[in-house]
Amino acid sequence: MKRYLIFLVAIICTLSFKVNAEQQAKWIYYPGDFDIWLCKELSLKRTERNQAYPTMWRLDPAYGIVVFKKQISLDKPENASIWVDGKYYIQTNKHGIFYDYDPQNFELPAGDYELSVCVENYQTVPSILFKSKSYVSDNTWIANSRNNDDVSASSWIFTEPSLPPSTYKLATTPIEAQTVKNEGDGVLIDFGKNTFAFPVLNGLKGSGQVQLYYGESKEEALAKKLAETYDIITVNNPVAKNDTLPTKAFRYILVVKDPSVSFDKISALYEYLPVEYKGTFSCSDPLINDIYNTSMYTFHLATRECHIDGIKRDRWVWSGDALQSYLMNFYTFFDEDVNTRTLWGLRGHDPVTTHINTILDYSFYWMIGIYYHYLYTGDASFIKQIYPRMLGTMNFCLNRLNENGLAEGLPGDWVFIDWAPIDKEGEVSFEQLLLIQSLKAMMECAEIAQDHATKEKMQKLYDSKKKEFNRIFWSDDKKAFLHSRIDGKLTDYATRYTNMFAILFNMVDQTKKQEIKESVILNDSILQITTPYMKFYELAALCEIGEQAKVLKFVKDYWGGMLERGATTFWEAFDPTAPEDKHYEMYGRPFGKSLCHAWGANPVYLFGRYFLGVYPTASGYKEYIIEPNLGGLKWMKGTVPTPEGVISVEMNTKKIGVTTTANTGGILKFKSKRTPKVNQGTLIKGDNNEYTLKLDKANSYYEVLYK
Amino acid sequence: MKRYLIFLVAIICTLSFKVNAEQQAKWIYYPGDFDIWLCKELSLKRTERNQAYPTMWRLDPAYGIVVFKKQISLDKPENASIWVDGKYYIQTNKHGIFYDYDPQNFELPAGDYELSVCVENYQTVPSILFKSKSYVSDNTWIANSRNNDDVSASSWIFTEPSLPPSTYKLATTPIEAQTVKNEGDGVLIDFGKNTFAFPVLNGLKGSGQVQLYYGESKEEALAKKLAETYDIITVNNPVAKNDTLPTKAFRYILVVKDPSVSFDKISALYEYLPVEYKGTFSCSDPLINDIYNTSMYTFHLATRECHIDGIKRDRWVWSGDALQSYLMNFYTFFDEDVNTRTLWGLRGHDPVTTHINTILDYSFYWMIGIYYHYLYTGDASFIKQIYPRMLGTMNFCLNRLNENGLAEGLPGDWVFIDWAPIDKEGEVSFEQLLLIQSLKAMMECAEIAQDHATKEKMQKLYDSKKKEFNRIFWSDDKKAFLHSRIDGKLTDYATRYTNMFAILFNMVDQTKKQEIKESVILNDSILQITTPYMKFYELAALCEIGEQAKVLKFVKDYWGGMLERGATTFWEAFDPTAPEDKHYEMYGRPFGKSLCHAWGANPVYLFGRYFLGVYPTASGYKEYIIEPNLGGLKWMKGTVPTPEGVISVEMNTKKIGVTTTANTGGILKFKSKRTPKVNQGTLIKGDNNEYTLKLDKANSYYEVLYK
Repeated sequence: MKRYLIFLVAIICTLSFKVNAEQQAKWIYYPGDFDIWLCKELSLKRTERNQAYPTMWRLDPAYGIVVFKKQISLDKPENASIWVDGKYYIQTNKHGIFYDYDPQNFELPAGDYELSVCVENYQTVPSILFKSKSYVSDNTWIANSRNNDDVSASSWIFTEPSLPPSTYKLATTPIEAQTVKNEGDGVLIDFGKNTFAFPVLNGLKGSGQVQLYYGESKEEALAKKLAETYDIITVNNPVAKNDTLPTKAFRYILVVKDPSVSFDKISALYEYLPVEYKGTFSCSDPLINDIYNTSMYTFHLATRECHIDGIKRDRWVWSGDALQSYLMNFYTFFDEDVNTRTLWGLRGHDPVTTHINTILDYSFYWMIGIYYHYLYTGDASFIKQIYPRMLGTMNFCLNRLNENGLAEGLPGDWVFIDWAPIDKEGEVSFEQLLLIQSLKAMMECAEIAQDHATKEKMQKLYDSKKKEFNRIFWSDDKKAFLHSRIDGKLTDYATRYTNMFAILFNMVDQTKKQEIKESVILNDSILQITTPYMKFYELAALCEIGEQAKVLKFVKDYWGGMLERGATTFWEAFDPTAPEDKHYEMYGRPFGKSLCHAWGANPVYLFGRYFLGVYPTASGYKEYIIEPNLGGLKWMKGTVPTPEGVISVEMNTKKIGVTTTANTGGILKFKSKRTPKVNQGTLIKGDNNEYTLKLDKANSYYEVLYK
Repeated sequence: MKRYLIFLVAIICTLSFKVNAEQQAKWIYYPGDFDIWLCKELSLKRTERNQAYPTMWRLDPAYGIVVFKKQISLDKPENASIWVDGKYYIQTNKHGIFYDYDPQNFELPAGDYELSVCVENYQTVPSILFKSKSYVSDNTWIANSRNNDDVSASSWIFTEPSLPPSTYKLATTPIEAQTVKNEGDGVLIDFGKNTFAFPVLNGLKGSGQVQLYYGESKEEALAKKLAETYDIITVNNPVAKNDTLPTKAFRYILVVKDPSVSFDKISALYEYLPVEYKGTFSCSDPLINDIYNTSMYTFHLATRECHIDGIKRDRWVWSGDALQSYLMNFYTFFDEDVNTRTLWGLRGHDPVTTHINTILDYSFYWMIGIYYHYLYTGDASFIKQIYPRMLGTMNFCLNRLNENGLAEGLPGDWVFIDWAPIDKEGEVSFEQLLLIQSLKAMMECAEIAQDHATKEKMQKLYDSKKKEFNRIFWSDDKKAFLHSRIDGKLTDYATRYTNMFAILFNMVDQTKKQEIKESVILNDSILQITTPYMKFYELAALCEIGEQAKVLKFVKDYWGGMLERGATTFWEAFDPTAPEDKHYEMYGRPFGKSLCHAWGANPVYLFGRYFLGVYPTASGYKEYIIEPNLGGLKWMKGTVPTPEGVISVEMNTKKIGVTTTANTGGILKFKSKRTPKVNQGTLIKGDNNEYTLKLDKANSYYEVLYK
């Protein structure tokens, strides 16, 4: 009997080490390294007036040598195949190195041993695909980057032997010019709307030069060498052929060529991240619908290998911009991968020697962004993988606190906050608020990573920093948080930043919230916010205090103003009062302004988050709230994606309709002057005509008639 | 008057910022990055039986983005030219980015500003060459690797615009086979001696396969796929052409080819580091002269882009092997650059996540090696550049000390010491000794880098660790340092390692030195050293205690034994008692043993250091001692290089002749039974017939007649 038992145990043990033979073999790589490599490649594509323009921060390549390991246990030898992106050798801790074998058909010996594949690839991403009857490469394998760091390998969508991760490309589709006309010594081609594409010169023939000047506006293309991007190519084609140029952002292309060169036409290959438009919004106001749709297109253009700031410029990944993009993503595509690619890419490898993007605020936004990603997606495995890097970044930040334990810019740190003319010296209250919120993010993530000592440490720091923040910066006199303290002396004014973030981060009680609302948010004498970047948070804060109607008006004026000026994508900045010939100017260059900027797509977030009113209150929408607010609209309807499908919301002045997903933790909140009628569920009445309805049925339609 | 003064000051200030227009423009790069990149390229060339074989440790590429900066001050614009290895842009903090200019002829504006060139190059080494009338790129420029780290840029021998650092190659010269004869199904080619070269197939024609099996021995080449290296190439040459294969180590090549392929002959391109043989030695014993010359050739083969262990295998840079190579280098080529390339390459960039080569001892050897390099060369600027990395490595080591403050192997650490079957668990006394010597190296280097706080910290640690080391490991009973302590329990035996290093590091007084000599060094019952690696130190220790005659006998037996077996270069290991057919076996492979191994060249150090007896006592030979010792030879003569030229020493049983260099800090030490006669200088008599003669005249010949 005993013998049989042992035999059975042996079988079970063996099975537990093996994966299902039917399971798909995946290309595996060191966690984050595909993302870091892709972000580097993306970030190095920027040119400015035909000059290469590398980033202002360090961009790490993938680790050049990675070892992939797997415990093998086989009763008898079996055939195996391996595909490797890089130079490599295979060995086991029992048999040594494998020599002189056919990689697509070699024998995996019987016995218990560790198989390891050591890969060298300094160009792209060391990665392998392995298949045998009993084993396939997947996340159960170990990866080691020669940093004494055995971790679980990563994989993604790559399963084709001929297509390792380094062959990853966005999708493309041909697009054609809408109009072509002579303009001065060239031809002006209009693609009808701003786009991001590979320009294609079809049937290019002859010998000589062709100049292509790209314009997000007509004026930019016509400005030739003052355009932000252009290509000057030398042609020597005795026989006509097509020439595809590197991706550019443009609506217009001005082509000037030598008479000795000819082409049939110029078309383009639109390049895009394949996503589903899961978040939707439409309403009774056609202008708002136009704004929403243009925002969606704008955001899609800037949602690529990673979240970039703008398609013409910088084509870089900025942590502050990215935070807004994560949030917009949750209300549009719910593409988790572009968020995680961005978060890995921003961080890179150790050592941490500068802040993310060199900006103090941006290290904090990075940590806060990771927590938001978890809150919306519930992806604990990502948190576990990136947690050691979070800890590295937080330790870097904590090591740079000043003698008062406050965040302050040190040499080499850029204290950004906003482009506004504000004082950034000394202890700026806004940076403390971001630090405190980052400590909260660290607490949550340490819990997920089961790093209890750090969790406790972060909790203590969070409590003490929050207390200290309130003690130092709250002014009972101004009923607001003051802007900063320099050399021990508090400034005597408040700015919007700290105060609106205190509301957004839920860092103040109802009393202070009301005080801030009156003394800052609705107080026109406080320095106005002019960048769409900070407008994002200001509009959100206004919604948080129930000012949806005010927000709606602002959106129509501001975004409507851009549409009125012919915008087909939304801009990096817009000043309705600027002279007509100055709209494209920025950073001292006549066409420096990006006309397709992620943060310009702000409305896709606002309408999902604050009009449809959907947001998670527990990770991955296990619990969530819907508090729709028409903000003066006659009706609205839309969808908000979650990991379990989309939540539908429709509302008019009498009725609210909601369709739940597989999640059963939802709550509908609304006001009604008279007792509302519901088609199902139990209604709970609160103060001030407030009602809540528990949405505890999966994939179910709830209807409320209210007044 | 005041006006003129200001004018004069302005001129002086301007001049002080400018370099002499006659000065040579140099390719500049981030300090250490050319070396780190070169070491990576070198280290990745290893193959084993046609398998790629990347290193067992991390190899860093150069930083991918580097900014070069220079303060410019010009009264009027001037023409400038720039050459860049990588993509780049030029900007100033006054004028912004330069667009649309001719890199070889653009205008540097008048005024005071910072010029900066941002270079991206992830393939090789970001570097620039810049020339204008008043400014050239050189070490006065600042380099920044996007790690918040403005440091002085580095340069070396690169001044040609068309030859950036990444084009660096060793020298080559054609060599011909000595004999060619049919052997089985192939042709065996003998180059007469072991070499390192690109094999060249001359006049290769036809279609089919050619197999080349390389052998450091004839047996290896004939073993075909059991040879450590081979190439199998597919030919498809309708017209005959030459094919040059990647470098290999070989004396023999067995060529097996399809009948459909033909070639005229196989020759090779010997690849070598161009060096001068500054150190020389010859004596009355022809066998010793043979041994010395073969050692010199062996060492030259292993002295390349960096100091490698062996030319066939591993072709890697190992810190323990390299320490011996630095020392050998000081008595042969005095090529400072190969030492610094090796030291940079071993260290790479931050973060420090493993020991150097993953070996505990090797981190210590690395720090000790830096100090030796300084002692022999006096190159303080190198110390200042590498000092931050030393500090990083030392901090890594200190952070890994155990709860008793002792060095002990942690998971991921390899405690090597030697290939001998010794216990490496727990607190090994040998590792403590290396730690203590490393603390001394840190003290010295912190002083040079003017890091006084660290110097003081290291001094305190040095004092306390040394005291503790003596207290724990010295046995009054055994009259020796014991081997180790495991779980608080001392081992009851001594090994040679700690005891001989205690003598070499001058860590014991004369009494203990004598005790160790009797109880360990000359005690045959203590575990014998069998590797040439540790023999290096044992023979040195024997010489330190005056046993030159014993050493001479050993050298003749051991190295003579290899020559007897036909060695043309010296081996990684040699056991005179091994069966004849087992000499090439190692690591479980029949031809695993390297037959040209740096540490096999040991005699080049021994004869210069302990027979001619020359060594520095202050950095860069500012002070030095010559204490020649014939060790039983009838006569000897030779030279030892120093930064100020070579010191010549000749000696027979009656006369010592010494020619000094420009250095005036030398002392000649010798014994004479009767009062010696000197041609110049003042003689001082000591105890035991010991005399010293101050060599205080530069470039002068001193002659001593003694008995």
